[in-house]
Amino acid sequence: MGYNAGNFDVAVIGAGHAGIEAALASARLGCKTIIFTINNDAVGNCPCNPSIGGTAKGHLVREIDALGGEMGKTADECFLQMRMLNRGKGPAVHSLRAQIDRRKYADTMKHKIELQENLILRQAEITELDRDNDGTWKLKTRMDAIFTAKAVVIATGTYLGGRIFVGETSYESGPDGIFPAKFLGASLKNLGLKLRRFKTGTPARVLRSSIDFSDLEVQEGDVPPVPFSYDTESLGDNKVVCHISWTNEKTKEIILNNIQRSPLYAGKIEGVGPRYCPSIEDKIVRFSNKQRHQLFIEPCGLETEEMYLQGMSSSLPEEVQTEFYHSIKGLENAVIMRPAYAIEYDCIDPTQMDNTLEFRDFSGLYGAGQFNGSSGYEEAAAQGLIAGINAALKVQGREPFILDRASSYIGTLVDDLVTKGCNEPYRMMTSRSEYRLILRQDNADVRLTPLGREIGLITDERWNKYLNKQELKKEEYKRIKNTVLSPTDELNNILVSRETSQVTTGVRMIDLLKRPQLNYDCLTEVDKDRPNIDHNIFEQVEIEIKYEGYIKKQLEQVEKMRKLEKKLLPKDVNYKTVTGLRLEAQEKLNNVKPDNIGQASRISGVSPADISVLLIWLTQRG
Amino acid sequence: MGYNAGNFDVAVIGAGHAGIEAALASARLGCKTIIFTINNDAVGNCPCNPSIGGTAKGHLVREIDALGGEMGKTADECFLQMRMLNRGKGPAVHSLRAQIDRRKYADTMKHKIELQENLILRQAEITELDRDNDGTWKLKTRMDAIFTAKAVVIATGTYLGGRIFVGETSYESGPDGIFPAKFLGASLKNLGLKLRRFKTGTPARVLRSSIDFSDLEVQEGDVPPVPFSYDTESLGDNKVVCHISWTNEKTKEIILNNIQRSPLYAGKIEGVGPRYCPSIEDKIVRFSNKQRHQLFIEPCGLETEEMYLQGMSSSLPEEVQTEFYHSIKGLENAVIMRPAYAIEYDCIDPTQMDNTLEFRDFSGLYGAGQFNGSSGYEEAAAQGLIAGINAALKVQGREPFILDRASSYIGTLVDDLVTKGCNEPYRMMTSRSEYRLILRQDNADVRLTPLGREIGLITDERWNKYLNKQELKKEEYKRIKNTVLSPTDELNNILVSRETSQVTTGVRMIDLLKRPQLNYDCLTEVDKDRPNIDHNIFEQVEIEIKYEGYIKKQLEQVEKMRKLEKKLLPKDVNYKTVTGLRLEAQEKLNNVKPDNIGQASRISGVSPADISVLLIWLTQRG
Repeated sequence: MGYNAGNFDVAVIGAGHAGIEAALASARLGCKTIIFTINNDAVGNCPCNPSIGGTAKGHLVREIDALGGEMGKTADECFLQMRMLNRGKGPAVHSLRAQIDRRKYADTMKHKIELQENLILRQAEITELDRDNDGTWKLKTRMDAIFTAKAVVIATGTYLGGRIFVGETSYESGPDGIFPAKFLGASLKNLGLKLRRFKTGTPARVLRSSIDFSDLEVQEGDVPPVPFSYDTESLGDNKVVCHISWTNEKTKEIILNNIQRSPLYAGKIEGVGPRYCPSIEDKIVRFSNKQRHQLFIEPCGLETEEMYLQGMSSSLPEEVQTEFYHSIKGLENAVIMRPAYAIEYDCIDPTQMDNTLEFRDFSGLYGAGQFNGSSGYEEAAAQGLIAGINAALKVQGREPFILDRASSYIGTLVDDLVTKGCNEPYRMMTSRSEYRLILRQDNADVRLTPLGREIGLITDERWNKYLNKQELKKEEYKRIKNTVLSPTDELNNILVSRETSQVTTGVRMIDLLKRPQLNYDCLTEVDKDRPNIDHNIFEQVEIEIKYEGYIKKQLEQVEKMRKLEKKLLPKDVNYKTVTGLRLEAQEKLNNVKPDNIGQASRISGVSPADISVLLIWLTQRG
Repeated sequence: MGYNAGNFDVAVIGAGHAGIEAALASARLGCKTIIFTINNDAVGNCPCNPSIGGTAKGHLVREIDALGGEMGKTADECFLQMRMLNRGKGPAVHSLRAQIDRRKYADTMKHKIELQENLILRQAEITELDRDNDGTWKLKTRMDAIFTAKAVVIATGTYLGGRIFVGETSYESGPDGIFPAKFLGASLKNLGLKLRRFKTGTPARVLRSSIDFSDLEVQEGDVPPVPFSYDTESLGDNKVVCHISWTNEKTKEIILNNIQRSPLYAGKIEGVGPRYCPSIEDKIVRFSNKQRHQLFIEPCGLETEEMYLQGMSSSLPEEVQTEFYHSIKGLENAVIMRPAYAIEYDCIDPTQMDNTLEFRDFSGLYGAGQFNGSSGYEEAAAQGLIAGINAALKVQGREPFILDRASSYIGTLVDDLVTKGCNEPYRMMTSRSEYRLILRQDNADVRLTPLGREIGLITDERWNKYLNKQELKKEEYKRIKNTVLSPTDELNNILVSRETSQVTTGVRMIDLLKRPQLNYDCLTEVDKDRPNIDHNIFEQVEIEIKYEGYIKKQLEQVEKMRKLEKKLLPKDVNYKTVTGLRLEAQEKLNNVKPDNIGQASRISGVSPADISVLLIWLTQRG
C-alpha cells in the first residue's frame, strides 16, 4: 500500500524548534530536504512560554546563530523585550533572554522555511518509518503517501503519543489543541527503538484586561536592547514591560488541599517531568518551607491580549487552577483564556545515539529535541542543528560534525545526552559546563563561526563581517595594551569614585582594566582614542583581559581533555571482554559505546580506575 | 460532576465567522457573553479560500457591515486585492470580493474579540448542552467546567462530528488539523435536535515558487480598490495579483480514470455537498461535455508562500490529486504543501428554527452558520449576527429582530433556511432574491443602518456619518435634477463618443443620466459643479435615477408582500385541523409553523389555493 510521493536526501519529522533548524541546515548544505508537520499552521509554535533564551539557553541561541542557525535571528525579528540576565554576576553566566511575539515568531519561521531553496514543507502525519534493504528510509503518511530519504531526523516534540492531563481528565492530544502523532510510536518500537514517557506542562493564559497591574512590580527590558544574532544590526526599542507577582500562603493552602487531585500525585502520569521547570504544585510540595514563589506575567504578543504566567504551570483540575490563580496579587479577577495542562509524550533514551545524534544501530536515523529527552526550545533547536548538519554531511559522504564540550554548550548538551543519558527532561544550565569561563555568550562567534564556515553554513558576507570583527578586536586589544593614561584629575576622580587606588604616574589601560572595580564603560571619558566599533568587541576584549589567568588555566584543562578525546575507542568492542573493568563499567560502556577515552570518563559508573584499565588496554592493543 | 465556572447571559459555541459576529453583537448590546473555541489559535480561521465576498456574498458582507457587524471592516484591514465582480452587468449583481491575508484576518478578529467589553474568549471543547428546569442553559466542557447562560448560539461549523476524507482514508478531524467536536453531537441528539450530515471540501495549497506563472493570465484588482465597510476611509493599493489557469482533457482523463476512488462516488461520504461550490471531480462528471474548467491561483497571505487553487477542491486520493494538478498549465511541477480534502460534519434542518434563528422548541437556543446547513463564511457571519442580536434581545426582554426578504439578502437567507429548508449546503446567490434591484450592495447602509442604530449596534459617530451622507445624497439628487447642461461642443462630443444622440438645446443632467449609454463618470468634464463627495453617493444617485421605474415597481411588490407578512398566523395551530388544506400543505405547515401568510406562501408544497384557504380560515377565526 501507498504511492511514491517523492525521494529526498533528508526528511525531517516535525516542524518545531528542532525540526526547523535541522531542515534549514540540511537544505542550506545543498541536500534536497522535506519537513513534515501535522499542521502547517503550527510550524514554529511556542506552546509554552513566549520567550527565547534565558540562563544557559541564551548561550545556546548565540551558538546556534554563530553556526548559521535561525533561532537567534528570528527571535531578534520578533522580540518584544530583551534582557541580559545575571549582569550582576560574572561574564560566564550573562545570558540573553527575549520576550517574543509568539504568533509572529511562528509565521516568520514558517515563511523562512517556505522561501528556503531545496526545502519543502509538507502537512502530513508520518505514521510509519521503515528501512529498505539498501538503507533507504521510507516514511509513510496517514494519506498513504510514501516519501523516501537517505537520512531522517525525528523531531516530534511533545506530539509523539501526546496525552494531555488536567486533574481527573486526560485525552490524546498534541499541544495547543492540535492532533498528536498517534501511529508513529508503534512503528518506531517495531523498528527496535526503546521509547519512554516524559512529561511537561504549561500555565494558564489569562486576559490582560482582567489583571490588576497597579500594585505589581514592573520589569523593564535593557536599554539599549542587545540582539541575539551577530547578523542583527539594530533592534529598535523594547515594546513591552513584564510584571512580577508572588504566590502566598493562601495559594499554598489551596494547592496542598487539592494535591491528591493532581494527576501526577494521583499516579496517573507515568511520564517524568522537568526538574528545573516544575509545576507550581511540585514547587510547593518540594520546597514546602518556602513561603512564596515568584511569577512573571508576560505578554504573548502585540496583537493579542493573552498573557502568560511564567512559573505557574499546573496539571491540577481547572477549578483548582482558577482558585489558586485568583489567590495571587493582581490575578484576583483574572479571566482564564486557556487552562494550564500537563502533557505526556514518547521519547527515547539518548544513550542510543552517538555525538552526531545518529542512532548507533540505525545508520541515517537521527533524533533531536524533546524526542531525545531534552526540554526547552533552545535545547531542541541546538540538537536540530547538529542532527540536520550531520544528516546532510552523511548523505554527502562528508566527515561528521562533532562539537566537543570545550567548544560550546551545544557540544556539552549533546555529550551529556548521549554519554550520561537523562532520567528526566534535560535542561541546559551553565553549571553543566566545566569550561564555562571560555563558553561565554559573548564569544560564541569566535568559538563556532569558523566551524560553521567550514561546514558551509556561513555566507561570504557574514564571514567577511566576522573576519573584519576579529581584525578590529585584535587592533583594539593592541590599542588597550599600548595606551598609557596620564595621572590626570579626570582619571583619578574616576578611580576614587570606583573605590580603587589613584595613580601618580602614567598607567597602562590594560592594567586598569584588570582591576576588578573598573571596566570599559567607566573609563569612557579618559579613553580619548576609543574607536567607534561594535560594543561586543569591547565586551570580549575586556573579559579576555580581566580573566586572562583563569581563561589560561581553563584552556589548559581543555588541552588535557582533548588529548583524552583523541584516544579513540573502537566501536565494535565488547567491554565484557576487557579484563580489569568493574562489572558496572562494563555494562555502562557497552550501553554508551563511547567514541574515545574522554567520553568514557564522563559516563556515570565509570571510575578513574576503569579509565586507567582502558588506557592500558588501548596501549596493549596498539 | 463538573464545577460552576461562570454564569453568562449569552454563550456562543464556536469562534468561526458565525460565532464571532454572534458574540460581538451580543457583547456590544450589553450582554455578558462568552465564546468557546476548541483552539484559541484557530479563531476566525479561513479553512477554505482566503477571500471574503463574491457574487451575492459581497452583498451579505456590506449588509453585515451596515448593521454594525465586523466582517467587512476586518476584510478591509486584511485585504490583498479588491475586485467588484460583474461590473459589466446591471448594478443589482455588482458584488465586491476581497482576497485577504488569511493569518492576519484570523489574528485581527481574535484581537477584536479579546478587546471587546463584556466578552470572554475561552479555549474549551463543549461536550454537553443541557437545560435546567428554569430554562437556564448549562454548557459542560471537556475539563468538567460548567458554564451557564440564558441563551446559547451554536456555531460549530465543520467541527461538529467532523470527519476528513481523502481517497480511501478517512478520520475524525476538524479543518486544518484541529480536533473536531466529538461529544457535543450526542448531547444535542439527546436534547431532541435532529442532526444530519453535510460535507464540504477544499483544494490543495501549493508552494508559490513551484508554480510557473509565465504563461498564465494575470488578474489585477480594481484601481482604486473599493472597501466593504462604510467605516473604511481609505484602503491603500492592491497588494497582490491572482492568476488564472484551466483544466484540460488530460485533467479530465485522470479524474475520470480514478473516479471510483473518490469517497463520494464510492459511497463512503453520506454527507451532501454544496451544489454551487463543487469539487473538480463533481464538475467534470456533471458537466462532462465541458472541455475545461477555470481555476484561480490565489495567494494566502503576504507572509506565506502557500497558494490556494480556487475551483479545484477534491477528495480524490493524494496521488490522483498530485497527478491531475500537475496536468494543469503552470502547475506542472507544483509542490503540494497541504493536500485537498473533503470534510463531513453534523448540521441541522433549519426549518426547526424561526426567523430569529431560535429553535422553535428550545427557548433561548439559537444556531448559525454551517450548523444551520449553509455554506460560506459570509452566510455564516450573516446568521451569526442575527442569532447573536436575537439572543441578546431575548435575554434583555426586548422585541426580536427580524429582517424580511425585502430588507436584505440576510433576511432572504434566513427566510430561505427556516421556511424552505435546504437539502444541501445553502449558498447565497442574487437569483435567490425577488427584490434584487433594491437589495444592492451599494445601498446596504440605506436599507439597514437605521435598523442597526435602533438595536444599538451603530455608534453615534457612525450614525452621524450616515446621516450626513444621506443629506449629501439628497442634495446631490436635487442638484442633478436642477442642473441644465448647455449644448456645447464638449457635451456633444461626449454624446457622440458614447453613441447617443446630440442635443441642440439645454438638457437636464437627470435626463442625460437616464440614457443607458451615459453615466456619471463619462459626464465628469461637463458637470462643472460636481461636489467632492464619496463616490458611493454618486453610485446610489445614478442607480436611483437610471432604474427609477423598475425600482418603483419592485417597491410595490414589497408593499404587497409586507401586507401578507402582517397577516400573522398563530404559533400553536395544528394545520391538520384546518379543513380545505391539502395533506402535503398540512404537513409542511406543521413542520415550519410559519409566522405569517407571507412566509406560508413561500413554503414549497404550499400552493396558492392553500394560501386562499388559510386567508379565509384566518378571517373566520378573527
